[in-house]
Amino acid sequence: MNILVINSGSSSLKFQIIETDQNNIDSSTDKIKVKGLIDRIGTQALAKITVPNGVEIKESIAIRDHSAALDYIFRKITSGTLNIDGIFSLSDINAVGHRVVHGGEKFSKSVLVDKSVLKEIEDCIDLAPLHNPANLKGIQATLALFGEKMPHAVVFDTAFHSTIPETNYLYALPYQYYRRYRIRKYGFHGLSHRYVSYRYRKLVNLERNQLNLITIHLGNGCSICAIKEGKSYNTSMGFTPLAGLIMGTRAGDIDASIPEFLAHKEGITLSDIDILLNKASGLLGISGLTNDMRELLDEEREHHDRRATLAIDMFTMRIKHYIGAYLAEMGGADAILFTGGIGENSAEIRKRICEGLQFLGIELNENLNKEKCFGAEGNISSDTSKIKTWVIPTNEELMIARDTFRCVTGLPAF
Amino acid sequence: MNILVINSGSSSLKFQIIETDQNNIDSSTDKIKVKGLIDRIGTQALAKITVPNGVEIKESIAIRDHSAALDYIFRKITSGTLNIDGIFSLSDINAVGHRVVHGGEKFSKSVLVDKSVLKEIEDCIDLAPLHNPANLKGIQATLALFGEKMPHAVVFDTAFHSTIPETNYLYALPYQYYRRYRIRKYGFHGLSHRYVSYRYRKLVNLERNQLNLITIHLGNGCSICAIKEGKSYNTSMGFTPLAGLIMGTRAGDIDASIPEFLAHKEGITLSDIDILLNKASGLLGISGLTNDMRELLDEEREHHDRRATLAIDMFTMRIKHYIGAYLAEMGGADAILFTGGIGENSAEIRKRICEGLQFLGIELNENLNKEKCFGAEGNISSDTSKIKTWVIPTNEELMIARDTFRCVTGLPAF
Repeated sequence: MNILVINSGSSSLKFQIIETDQNNIDSSTDKIKVKGLIDRIGTQALAKITVPNGVEIKESIAIRDHSAALDYIFRKITSGTLNIDGIFSLSDINAVGHRVVHGGEKFSKSVLVDKSVLKEIEDCIDLAPLHNPANLKGIQATLALFGEKMPHAVVFDTAFHSTIPETNYLYALPYQYYRRYRIRKYGFHGLSHRYVSYRYRKLVNLERNQLNLITIHLGNGCSICAIKEGKSYNTSMGFTPLAGLIMGTRAGDIDASIPEFLAHKEGITLSDIDILLNKASGLLGISGLTNDMRELLDEEREHHDRRATLAIDMFTMRIKHYIGAYLAEMGGADAILFTGGIGENSAEIRKRICEGLQFLGIELNENLNKEKCFGAEGNISSDTSKIKTWVIPTNEELMIARDTFRCVTGLPAF
Repeated sequence: MNILVINSGSSSLKFQIIETDQNNIDSSTDKIKVKGLIDRIGTQALAKITVPNGVEIKESIAIRDHSAALDYIFRKITSGTLNIDGIFSLSDINAVGHRVVHGGEKFSKSVLVDKSVLKEIEDCIDLAPLHNPANLKGIQATLALFGEKMPHAVVFDTAFHSTIPETNYLYALPYQYYRRYRIRKYGFHGLSHRYVSYRYRKLVNLERNQLNLITIHLGNGCSICAIKEGKSYNTSMGFTPLAGLIMGTRAGDIDASIPEFLAHKEGITLSDIDILLNKASGLLGISGLTNDMRELLDEEREHHDRRATLAIDMFTMRIKHYIGAYLAEMGGADAILFTGGIGENSAEIRKRICEGLQFLGIELNENLNKEKCFGAEGNISSDTSKIKTWVIPTNEELMIARDTFRCVTGLPAF
């Protein structure tokens, strides 16, 4: 089954066409046939389309909206010049899967799109005012192109966390604000935490309910998830993606009195503060240099830059904090999984996170740790490490493709 | 030396007169000669003065301001009717010690009051707009009564936390806001964390730099402190006392996006939100019933009240979170100390906090735990517990008296 996977932002559209293996859904035999990104939609857009055979298109072209972006993509794909295996026309696509950031409390798993589902995604706009409208644009565009007879699935970033117990998802606010406005922890990066925990259990051959893990997604956004008996038990992002770990440009946890204090001092509005906390803080804010961990590590190595080191140390200290916290909340765990751009590629950061955690039974093997970069997968802990540490490259698109397959065929979710 | 200890609130004045033993400063031989509280200053005040000999005054009386309250107190004390051992006139007081909530970055220890010190406390008003002006009222009142020749010391709630390293006290905000406005973690309850760690080390006969502890102060305000080599290494309260643990009426840690969302939804100002987060949240907010842990435990036992249980479970879960987090940040600890009203008296809460932490080497002895209530002090962990757990009743007034003694005599701080 050829599945078009769409991740739609407010002015961008990322896509992949993945052929999932119907007879072997649990393996890694899924093939990416083509992938691409249209950025800066609405003005002079940048388009990039890549085929595994090595063919690549890069173009700067005026693209009006998400529908036009999709038209552009399929004009290129079906033109024959890309020579994509098995994709000649729109009818070679069997289903479409969309990533949707916020499913609120309504969606605990992926579902096929119908009018009521669209309505419920709209109802969550209040909770994700930037993301959900952008995701809806993508859905409207593929509905317009393929028609309503094409099966469309929606896969939520929040759904995996729907198992978090009330004790962990509620804030200690007056309870009526949960009832009235659904203010609670939702958590994000659900596709990634779910994928790596799923992949790990296949690799070590465990049943889902045997999984007691801490999964750590470190990309430009960062979050950590406590997985107890195979289910999300707690996660560091909260009501919004601002909370928790220090990220590229997001502050993570701060004293909630700070926004008001800072707004007052700087004479700016709370919306300005919101942008400041999400776009100008984190690694970028501390270092005053960059949100890119590679650059920070280079700067530290080459110039012993004080604030680069400070940013890295604060970043790793916050992760230590949550590893300890989630072990205590869960009563222990069997393994820690690293994923995301930083988690998959930076042996240095993984080392600095695990330093001093030997008393918890977390011991890295230095060589294994160094080897696991650029897509390599596997154990990085010593033989005697009580809690095993692994690197598992994430694959959210694969998760969307497989969920879509399962929605279409009626197979239960895994 | 007879020391008048003052804890001055915006409309209240708490005092003790403590005789510290000059020859034996490190023991517990200090004697409380009289203590009391004047509440609702500015209207019809409530006065209560208690002497260890059993004499007690309770009166409702019009008291204009803090100076009038102090006059009232010394009129009673020196009248002879209270029969206080060794206190007959103002001249029997040798020094005055004041609690001051916020010492900003200026004060890392207690100091004698002079003009520049007063100025610096005023400079911190911005950081503690409710507390520091109230503390200053108390200082002005005792200066007026006793004159400037009487030694006055100020003892700060933040000072103990001045050793917290930059990695732990900075927020991941744009660095300039730390430089411009000193937005950082300060921490509070310093007197309590310092006292119990000091008391513990005397009881187990350790040097200060041998102390690796987690101290947990659970009163109406709650905070937890990681003490590494005898020094505060991290603490759960932050820029303000709002952050960290769930408290009687404070929310503790929440996603910092919530204040703006809630202000917008409810159509209220951020100052209203500030009050809501500090006065209407926490145990009171979740339960919709009370900020008093004893009442919640009763309600749970008698009526199986769902939200009473929820509030208690969230409260204990947050403490588990921080115990694990601080162990990981410090690389382990030797003991956990409980103090404060709830920490000293509720065996049930201590039990629920430590449940499931056996994998960390934390094991309570059920009988020892049950015995340690209402002022009892000592170990509550099993013989095999790797991390020892103790109950140590706090005594912040004693700390103020001893610091004052040391400031006056020029002895170094302990």
